[in-house]
Amino acid sequence: MGPGIIRAIGAHDALGARLGEQAGFDAIWSSGLEISASHGVPDAGILTMTEMLSVAGWMAGAVSIPVIADCDAGYGNTTNVAHMVRRFEAAGVAGVCIEDKVFPKMNSFMPGPQKLVPIEEFAGKIEAAKYAQRNPAFVVIGRIEALIAGLDLDDALRRGRVYADAGADAVLIHAKDTSPERILAFLGAWDREKPVVVVPTTYWSVTGSDLERAGARMVIYANHGLRAAVQAVTETFQAIRRADGTATVEECIASLETIFALQNVPQMLADADRHSTRSNSQPTDPPVEVESVYESPEP
Amino acid sequence: MGPGIIRAIGAHDALGARLGEQAGFDAIWSSGLEISASHGVPDAGILTMTEMLSVAGWMAGAVSIPVIADCDAGYGNTTNVAHMVRRFEAAGVAGVCIEDKVFPKMNSFMPGPQKLVPIEEFAGKIEAAKYAQRNPAFVVIGRIEALIAGLDLDDALRRGRVYADAGADAVLIHAKDTSPERILAFLGAWDREKPVVVVPTTYWSVTGSDLERAGARMVIYANHGLRAAVQAVTETFQAIRRADGTATVEECIASLETIFALQNVPQMLADADRHSTRSNSQPTDPPVEVESVYESPEP
Amino acid sequence: MGPGIIRAIGAHDALGARLGEQAGFDAIWSSGLEISASHGVPDAGILTMTEMLSVAGWMAGAVSIPVIADCDAGYGNTTNVAHMVRRFEAAGVAGVCIEDKVFPKMNSFMPGPQKLVPIEEFAGKIEAAKYAQRNPAFVVIGRIEALIAGLDLDDALRRGRVYADAGADAVLIHAKDTSPERILAFLGAWDREKPVVVVPTTYWSVTGSDLERAGARMVIYANHGLRAAVQAVTETFQAIRRADGTATVEECIASLETIFALQNVPQMLADADRHSTRSNSQPTDPPVEVESVYESPEP
Amino acid sequence: MGPGIIRAIGAHDALGARLGEQAGFDAIWSSGLEISASHGVPDAGILTMTEMLSVAGWMAGAVSIPVIADCDAGYGNTTNVAHMVRRFEAAGVAGVCIEDKVFPKMNSFMPGPQKLVPIEEFAGKIEAAKYAQRNPAFVVIGRIEALIAGLDLDDALRRGRVYADAGADAVLIHAKDTSPERILAFLGAWDREKPVVVVPTTYWSVTGSDLERAGARMVIYANHGLRAAVQAVTETFQAIRRADGTATVEECIASLETIFALQNVPQMLADADRHSTRSNSQPTDPPVEVESVYESPEP
Repeated sequence: MGPGIIRAIGAHDALGARLGEQAGFDAIWSSGLEISASHGVPDAGILTMTEMLSVAGWMAGAVSIPVIADCDAGYGNTTNVAHMVRRFEAAGVAGVCIEDKVFPKMNSFMPGPQKLVPIEEFAGKIEAAKYAQRNPAFVVIGRIEALIAGLDLDDALRRGRVYADAGADAVLIHAKDTSPERILAFLGAWDREKPVVVVPTTYWSVTGSDLERAGARMVIYANHGLRAAVQAVTETFQAIRRADGTATVEECIASLETIFALQNVPQMLADADRHSTRSNSQPTDPPVEVESVYESPEP
Repeated sequence: MGPGIIRAIGAHDALGARLGEQAGFDAIWSSGLEISASHGVPDAGILTMTEMLSVAGWMAGAVSIPVIADCDAGYGNTTNVAHMVRRFEAAGVAGVCIEDKVFPKMNSFMPGPQKLVPIEEFAGKIEAAKYAQRNPAFVVIGRIEALIAGLDLDDALRRGRVYADAGADAVLIHAKDTSPERILAFLGAWDREKPVVVVPTTYWSVTGSDLERAGARMVIYANHGLRAAVQAVTETFQAIRRADGTATVEECIASLETIFALQNVPQMLADADRHSTRSNSQPTDPPVEVESVYESPEP
Repeated sequence: MGPGIIRAIGAHDALGARLGEQAGFDAIWSSGLEISASHGVPDAGILTMTEMLSVAGWMAGAVSIPVIADCDAGYGNTTNVAHMVRRFEAAGVAGVCIEDKVFPKMNSFMPGPQKLVPIEEFAGKIEAAKYAQRNPAFVVIGRIEALIAGLDLDDALRRGRVYADAGADAVLIHAKDTSPERILAFLGAWDREKPVVVVPTTYWSVTGSDLERAGARMVIYANHGLRAAVQAVTETFQAIRRADGTATVEECIASLETIFALQNVPQMLADADRHSTRSNSQPTDPPVEVESVYESPEP
Repeated sequence: MGPGIIRAIGAHDALGARLGEQAGFDAIWSSGLEISASHGVPDAGILTMTEMLSVAGWMAGAVSIPVIADCDAGYGNTTNVAHMVRRFEAAGVAGVCIEDKVFPKMNSFMPGPQKLVPIEEFAGKIEAAKYAQRNPAFVVIGRIEALIAGLDLDDALRRGRVYADAGADAVLIHAKDTSPERILAFLGAWDREKPVVVVPTTYWSVTGSDLERAGARMVIYANHGLRAAVQAVTETFQAIRRADGTATVEECIASLETIFALQNVPQMLADADRHSTRSNSQPTDPPVEVESVYESPEP
């Protein structure tokens, strides 16, 4: 990671990743919550690694900025983590983030108790992840859920230090506080070289610059694209129902031309044109051959 | 199809399908354009049947209203169509729509020429689709691209009649006119019992009731959810960039509680609770057994 | 399950399932060990449910006899089990088998300790599975790994009874003994109505009829197809290397005609012919139309 | 490609690829026929690129020798070919082979007519493939089906030259002759620098060395693993049926230990051990923390 805070944006498909890149974000967060929601299921370890990987791979192919994949608790034990790292790496993802909750994890913002694994068990997963990677640039982020699970700042710091020392390239300190106070305290007390990542979903009054000044190296806006889409789609669908047609929404939604541009249609047409001009310019096929074996011409 | 016009809404994932059901639409259109766009690729036969099927299957599992899958040109010849029908049927999709363009098809709204297959070749695909289905309720819609390809109303009607007579459960007449005139003329001249489906993407001044009066039996708003989402996500991402944080967007986007509800989190928690109470109420495990083989308790 | 013992054969792809059906077996066992091996990974919870499901779904589409899917420990907790059941059911699989080991499970024949979950936790999974299914004919088998984990016959029976009473449609008693003695003792002591399934991988001296007389209702030959294939492919590859060509193996391997028959090529050709004759017999396409919009005929 | 002929072996899953590597072959052919057969469907463009890609990707992850993917006719037009190349490249596949038949292709050994695309149309696909690749080492093989389609040697040579000149890294000349005569004539007349690949499925009397002397640079034994497996599995299943058990086949099939070795179980156990010793040696978790938030210990 370079100087300055990295601003990452959550997405749940390649299109969202491309919109994030277009808006100027530095990285894409392949969000477990967003992807689960887009599949209509809770963010509770229900989607498999395969399903998460598929989405992250499409994202990685769609943007030139790094994609960091939210990999829950690593989908099992150290063997699963090692396998996971190799597969995400092969899919072109820049890095993964695993958290110290038991599998199957529950979304950190859901009601109910949260269960952590012992520190050393999770440190073993970090080690396994780093050991498995083949590309030295691949990043493994260790996510600390101590504050989410009801533990205190000391617990969070102790865990973070062990994860950093076990080889994590960064630690992510998560919280669902509405004030950034404890996160800022964590940043102030952090005594390792490894960067700290934060996710101000609930303590949203803080800015990226605030967090940078406090020592954070990466901030993730993890689920706002999904939430914006849900709001807009809900309203648009209701408006279509009310008007019994789309006349009232046409002005408020992206044009087909915008969609085509996001799909790289112009590039596709240019590429198709390049490779088809050849066939026009070099008519070397003997007609006699055609008649006997080619697909029969139209009647 | 029952009496009255069926109002269908396009979607590209299970979440969008659920939003469509929630808004009161009668059916979901698993849109090739939307699904392609969500993967960041043109709607030009690039995504495979497998990828389209996966999304349609997730939609079918997420809603109780019918899902109709946009199946492009049927992904090949009659063999491919037959295989496709069996797979979409097995995935719980209520029906498929195939169009009379050559494979790989180009989106009907994209610039450039559109190529059709001969009428009888496409009628063979309709036959193959109907022959392949196992569930008698499965629906095959034959989509007429004659007007899109620059042919006239008579051509469109001639094609539609052959498709209907070949067994299509409905025909879809497509156009990119800004006026509904030709579509209304088609409906007026239609002389088969089979229902007609319309897609007023460009001639959006017409209402569903207008179309019903003219004889249409199904109207598809094919891509408005995607376009609403793109607009909203773009604006939200820009706002986050401008404010260097999410404070200004929090009021405008769906809450996490809304997202959780759409994911059926309450149902999942209730189900989990039901099956876990059992273990609390019947402590029949002998401790001696536990010690020897269970996962070692935490230190 | 009907009268008489059901003889099931393991497979790892649709072709193997079809060979099993052709040989006269009553059911197919979608084997976790076989499928893991065919992907080149250990049978240790590395492949995801998605990957296992995909194979089982292909099998179910390829044969008319029931496919029972080996679903390891259920891929997580009761929520995962419920999700799993709905997905396997939707894929056309006749039933699933889950085992009372911790996730991620290790293959029962691998060296090293085996960890079980508490009885009641597993009974909760059985309940969750039965509660989730929609098709009343769907079968849930509860697999008892007590003998594999080093516990005794009484432990195995106690577990089996709780699983049967929790709703399992059958219990599978597994062992890696070389003698059938303990399995026969289990069958003799079994005092529930629910059928018992056995897997004589290591105690292979016993016959299906022996097991039937002892009270077993289903016997699974779980991995012999894979092992036969590995042996034959290894020898064939070595022979090709030795001879620097395939001359010496041609007599020993299936012909291409045999392969085509297993792929249902004759059925495909007949179907293709049926739907294409139509286009030959009804040449209603006006040539003028063709010239303007059809794919240009060959030069 | 280096000096000497490359001997490649066909496979349809990662396990087969590993057996090929183990037997000393130089490369793996991810065979369309084998993969189709393993899914129980004809080799006729029924499986999608996604399904073929998935298998090829697993193979590439399982072996250290190159995997060449049989990509039929490129799954569509130049746009599809470009997309295909990027996806196979990303999956770690060393190269692809596309053939000059129309989509959907029919297996070259199946009865019935074979349709080719015009030379220049296929040359455009070669160009598109080479233009799309990002890794300079990625290989695109242009497969000539002229002899399969009933054309003569001059046609085959003319096509091969155009494909080579269009950028193909090699050409594959296919035939279903029982004598190698025409293939040897093709090799004798070949006047481009690009290597020639041959597939002696039907003219199997020839050896790899014969082909090398004649100028071939790669020989593919395309489907013998599948055919060996089908033969052995059929016989084994019949033997199990006859004996009502596996006693008679135990000696003839690979042991579970052999299977475990092919799955890399020993490596997995060593890796797991490495990362778990850490947790045993550093018991730094404070018990007080455990009680409040960890998963409850067993009763």
